[in-house]
Amino acid sequence: MNKKWFPSLLTIGSIAVSSYYYGAYEERQKFFKNNRLDEKQQSELLHKHSTKPAFPSFAAVSAAEPAVVTEVNLTATPWRISQIMKYGFPSLDNVRSYSDFVLSYDRRNRVPYWVFEHLTAASVAKNEEVDRAKCDFKSDESIHPYFRSQNSDYFRSGFDRGHMAAAGNHRLHQKHCADTFFLTNMAPQVGQGFNRDAWNRLEMYVRKLTKNFTNVYVCTGPLYLPHQEEDGKNYIKYQVIGANNVAVPTHFYKIIVAESTEGQLEMEAYIMPNQVISDDTPLQIFQVPPESVERAAGLLFFDKVNKNQLVKINGKKV
Amino acid sequence: MNKKWFPSLLTIGSIAVSSYYYGAYEERQKFFKNNRLDEKQQSELLHKHSTKPAFPSFAAVSAAEPAVVTEVNLTATPWRISQIMKYGFPSLDNVRSYSDFVLSYDRRNRVPYWVFEHLTAASVAKNEEVDRAKCDFKSDESIHPYFRSQNSDYFRSGFDRGHMAAAGNHRLHQKHCADTFFLTNMAPQVGQGFNRDAWNRLEMYVRKLTKNFTNVYVCTGPLYLPHQEEDGKNYIKYQVIGANNVAVPTHFYKIIVAESTEGQLEMEAYIMPNQVISDDTPLQIFQVPPESVERAAGLLFFDKVNKNQLVKINGKKV
Repeated sequence: MNKKWFPSLLTIGSIAVSSYYYGAYEERQKFFKNNRLDEKQQSELLHKHSTKPAFPSFAAVSAAEPAVVTEVNLTATPWRISQIMKYGFPSLDNVRSYSDFVLSYDRRNRVPYWVFEHLTAASVAKNEEVDRAKCDFKSDESIHPYFRSQNSDYFRSGFDRGHMAAAGNHRLHQKHCADTFFLTNMAPQVGQGFNRDAWNRLEMYVRKLTKNFTNVYVCTGPLYLPHQEEDGKNYIKYQVIGANNVAVPTHFYKIIVAESTEGQLEMEAYIMPNQVISDDTPLQIFQVPPESVERAAGLLFFDKVNKNQLVKINGKKV
Repeated sequence: MNKKWFPSLLTIGSIAVSSYYYGAYEERQKFFKNNRLDEKQQSELLHKHSTKPAFPSFAAVSAAEPAVVTEVNLTATPWRISQIMKYGFPSLDNVRSYSDFVLSYDRRNRVPYWVFEHLTAASVAKNEEVDRAKCDFKSDESIHPYFRSQNSDYFRSGFDRGHMAAAGNHRLHQKHCADTFFLTNMAPQVGQGFNRDAWNRLEMYVRKLTKNFTNVYVCTGPLYLPHQEEDGKNYIKYQVIGANNVAVPTHFYKIIVAESTEGQLEMEAYIMPNQVISDDTPLQIFQVPPESVERAAGLLFFDKVNKNQLVKINGKKV
């Protein structure tokens, strides 16, 4: 097989996938236009995905192109998605592209597998026109109703709807900020002492990296880590909330690649327990080898990073 | 978008995906041929998937073609895969095609998400040439080492390596039977009282369906079901075994579609707890609405079944 074929084949492949989803969309529109659904039709409808720009159709866009923010994209353009996902997809299950971030949704746990963002000094800069108070948490209709988390699942659960792509990372436009409020981008987090404190400190730290690095790529997601019990055996145990059994992760991870103007890369990986963390705990304590996040999450991060560009992992030279 | 385009677009898309995997395979072969791996190369290699016929390349094969076993396939031919998957893929995450069944692998839990089989009277008939005692449990090198379950994980765990695609369902050729012994097709099961008893009875029941139905499609997999604890909250809890933290599912499901010569379909769905079940428990007790398996598994089964063909669910007319 001649390898020169790949780019064009992949382009065509991408078109095929998009076409499929577009076809499904049209089919669904037909149903709604008829507006006369009997029970059987409803049942059939329940088995069709509502669709939105889902699986990105840009596999042939070269990752080698420089990542610079040219203009504010309000829809998930192939160009912007290829920027965000420059260093590879951790997995390809139920991928959704929003205006300024990309995620993979875990239908069994009703939270994301991973959420990928690309930050620059410009995209995180304070912007008076963007007001997160105007954003509403909303369920994502593109997820099949069986697997869709709802605000009601979180209501009175004792947990915050914790952003994976932080609202504060998406300040170029109100829509960017608003998109981070889709429940597909949320997981139940301990509020006081975690989401509003230690986790928030980590988010601020990531934003701050844009002061010293041209491009910051960050992938965030939940973990369900085992612990040993008195019987000497290891167990994974986590709460589920609401009618849809939304999983409360035991931990969260962030894995970051920061790119200097010279194209050098520094990687950092963090795992934080979903619990109250005292304010004087330094973030560095939560640094872990990137590999341990990969093993626990079942994902491979930054697969396309050129190892020659990688100069530091968790602050240490490699 | 003209819908007549879809079949050819999908064909091209499939080719693209297969090409990609084939390319990756060739790339890997190169590494091995060089046979001079330094540490950096090894680390890079670790981030490449070892590959085998993985993502099926047959999306354009019509599901309308009659499913008849023409000859014994020893490799996962597009034709055979399209037979097995006639009624749709439950999901597309890490799909692997073996000689006589297809599965999707859960890299986080190191067990399958789902395993799909197509059975006929011929394929399950006693065959003196096939001896399951000659089959060895073996790990699947096509799974990245971070996520690959090993025999050592099961050793002395107290759990059986429980087949999802049952060995007894694949008797046309020794290779069919041998392929069911890949650890990707296993999940830890309680041995005495479950794997060797109630679960085995369910497997025999499914095989027996081939006496009355031309084609039997069965999808099998693990579940992790929540339970309420004394604090009134719901939790998902399961043991993990071995160095690779292989998940011990709390339950297993089977969802079956049996097709008569007239093309009429009957569906049955079962959920069984992974625990000792007394021999006098009738299998019917474990029947559940197919929807409840879908919600718990995060999967959609038999999505492409024409609802007009479906005449019974769990023995009741629909």
